[in-house]
Amino acid sequence: MFGARCLLRALRSCSSAPCPRHKPSARLSVRDALGARSTNGERVKVQGWIRSVRSQKEVLFLHINDGSSLESLQVVADSSFDSRELAFGSSVEVQGQLVKSPSKKQNVEMKAEKIEIVGNCDTKAFPFKYKERPPLEYVRQYPHLRCRTNALGSILRIRSEATAAIHSFFKDSGFVHIHTPIITSNDCEGAGELFQVEPSSKIKVPEENFFNVPAFLTVSGQLHLEVMSGAFTQVFTFGPTFRAENSQSRRHLAEFYMVEAEISFVESLQDLMRVMERLFKTATMTVLSNCPEDVELCHKFIAPGQKVRTYAKKQLFNVAAVDLLVPGVGELFGGSLREERYHFLEQRLARLGLTEAYQWYLDLRRFGSVPHGGFGMGFERYLQCILGIDNIKDVIPFPRFTHSCVL
Amino acid sequence: MFGARCLLRALRSCSSAPCPRHKPSARLSVRDALGARSTNGERVKVQGWIRSVRSQKEVLFLHINDGSSLESLQVVADSSFDSRELAFGSSVEVQGQLVKSPSKKQNVEMKAEKIEIVGNCDTKAFPFKYKERPPLEYVRQYPHLRCRTNALGSILRIRSEATAAIHSFFKDSGFVHIHTPIITSNDCEGAGELFQVEPSSKIKVPEENFFNVPAFLTVSGQLHLEVMSGAFTQVFTFGPTFRAENSQSRRHLAEFYMVEAEISFVESLQDLMRVMERLFKTATMTVLSNCPEDVELCHKFIAPGQKVRTYAKKQLFNVAAVDLLVPGVGELFGGSLREERYHFLEQRLARLGLTEAYQWYLDLRRFGSVPHGGFGMGFERYLQCILGIDNIKDVIPFPRFTHSCVL
Repeated sequence: MFGARCLLRALRSCSSAPCPRHKPSARLSVRDALGARSTNGERVKVQGWIRSVRSQKEVLFLHINDGSSLESLQVVADSSFDSRELAFGSSVEVQGQLVKSPSKKQNVEMKAEKIEIVGNCDTKAFPFKYKERPPLEYVRQYPHLRCRTNALGSILRIRSEATAAIHSFFKDSGFVHIHTPIITSNDCEGAGELFQVEPSSKIKVPEENFFNVPAFLTVSGQLHLEVMSGAFTQVFTFGPTFRAENSQSRRHLAEFYMVEAEISFVESLQDLMRVMERLFKTATMTVLSNCPEDVELCHKFIAPGQKVRTYAKKQLFNVAAVDLLVPGVGELFGGSLREERYHFLEQRLARLGLTEAYQWYLDLRRFGSVPHGGFGMGFERYLQCILGIDNIKDVIPFPRFTHSCVL
Repeated sequence: MFGARCLLRALRSCSSAPCPRHKPSARLSVRDALGARSTNGERVKVQGWIRSVRSQKEVLFLHINDGSSLESLQVVADSSFDSRELAFGSSVEVQGQLVKSPSKKQNVEMKAEKIEIVGNCDTKAFPFKYKERPPLEYVRQYPHLRCRTNALGSILRIRSEATAAIHSFFKDSGFVHIHTPIITSNDCEGAGELFQVEPSSKIKVPEENFFNVPAFLTVSGQLHLEVMSGAFTQVFTFGPTFRAENSQSRRHLAEFYMVEAEISFVESLQDLMRVMERLFKTATMTVLSNCPEDVELCHKFIAPGQKVRTYAKKQLFNVAAVDLLVPGVGELFGGSLREERYHFLEQRLARLGLTEAYQWYLDLRRFGSVPHGGFGMGFERYLQCILGIDNIKDVIPFPRFTHSCVL
């Protein structure tokens, strides 16, 4: 049907042995093309999806986006290139010269010499339309396509940037990264409802546990980080955590990401709060400086006024207790010094009948114990906080919550 | 008992308001102390665990390790500091001056002015002994303490370094990082047995699915990355994946980490293989240059001769098919171009009765489809490969496999 013929063609051209007679054009991302310093007429190739088509009498303007930046590359072509297939959403490969743009809207544009349709877009069925700015509630209905809107594009680029910034922050501060386990036999904390895990073939015979013991999805990596902070002093983890909470609210997910850190030889809550504050500031500064357009899009169109609010929130750190609650978002940070006293822990575990199960945790206090503490930061809540996104489902690529596990 | 009194003391001194009469000493990690350029007599403070004690007539030598490096800091103290509590495994805080070491074994050592025991070690019960180099099989029995051995310390520092290097590689190459979901309703691939997920309260009533549909732990982020590569062109994920395989072999885990990438507009397998090769080389070079001592420990004591073997393996890349099998380790890389043709996919899904469930996947070929492909790299196998570690359980902090989910 529709796209299939074109796809077939694209695939065939793809599989046939290429035999270039000219020097092949250098392939550039849209971001690199837009940032090109010299526009000395070298031929380049750009690939991406059409975001707009404007056809004038003698000239055709296309905007090409490949997700490397919010901004698209303007392509200027002779009107002879015009075709019904050059439509919003189609994928194309364009070859031509990068030249200085006469318009003030961009520094660089491309003078097209060759435009190839890679894949058609069935525009009638495509849920997004040219020039529309659909609300987040609407695009949420299309989890497989929403990343192609400006809003989700910006949010997910920022998420990626923040992820990298958080890894760099901890590495630069001398923390060792630990992959704490996802499946765990600790049902500690009693933190809300737990997800239990069994092979699909055994789920109806709970007496035959795959791991010999009941196994759950982690609610926190804290205990495992405590193990590791007893060897590496400063450790962190950044991964998925789970709550089987029966909530479809805009604040809760069944699967969400946590940044957790644990530090040995801490002397007070202040020590922890200093790390939290540096983490927040460093990550946020990196995001603001590396994706200014993406952040601006959020602040301008999704949460007007957020820019000011964000900074106001950061001042909270100066007076915050170690649980930091952010208005409209919920608990962003939670941290504490851990119980250090062997006999206190022992008594508490004995009362709960857990001494045997948690002997390993007691052991940590038996062999060169140190005062230590740590904190967790909800990553989605962090993104909501700096971007002003109201619903947590809009800052994670594939949200999971009660009654919903799409894709 | 043993450590409790001392811990209590430590805790008390911790909670009492500090009132320093002198300028407090700068706190340094062992790594920073060892790398100090100027040893101009400034007083510093180092905290860590005792790795060795050697008492001579008038001098006491301690080696202090805090996990920031394989190498420990040598502390030289007056024999009056000697005490039974200064034992292998105890945690201490040492203040003193960094001075040039007269020995050739290290550049810098510390002249102690104050040594404080932070936490005693019950050395009789502690499973590791001074100067022993226990085999990995032995230390594996102590998942909560094994990170305090040299071998696991080195391996986990390397794992952390490799994790950071992989994130940096993709970021520097213009890839967007995507957190692909852990819980998914796709039971695609038919890849081995799947783990199913339900709230612990519902696990016996499978008709009441929390997500309305049966939900599983992911076996691959490929399909979700395919969604995202249609917007961002180059995407990657680095997270846990799961197989409910009934295997206790040295090659399999129920929970392991995969690096997966998906790239739009690829023209051939060569395009993918170039990325795989650059990933392998960049990560490995970073590890070799940032943790040379840790890598050497593995090559010297765990897998003698591995250094040579590692490089030999890398040459495989020049002739490899897109599945790269490494002797002794298994499949390290697997990659492919994805099926692009709408009607082919449609027919195949129809035959399997999956058209409705995978309409979203068909949609990706309907709206601006592009030729694309991707690959996955088993992260634990990567570590085994470069370090020569025979058993996969030794390169992950908390191994999970049939009959075993400890901690």
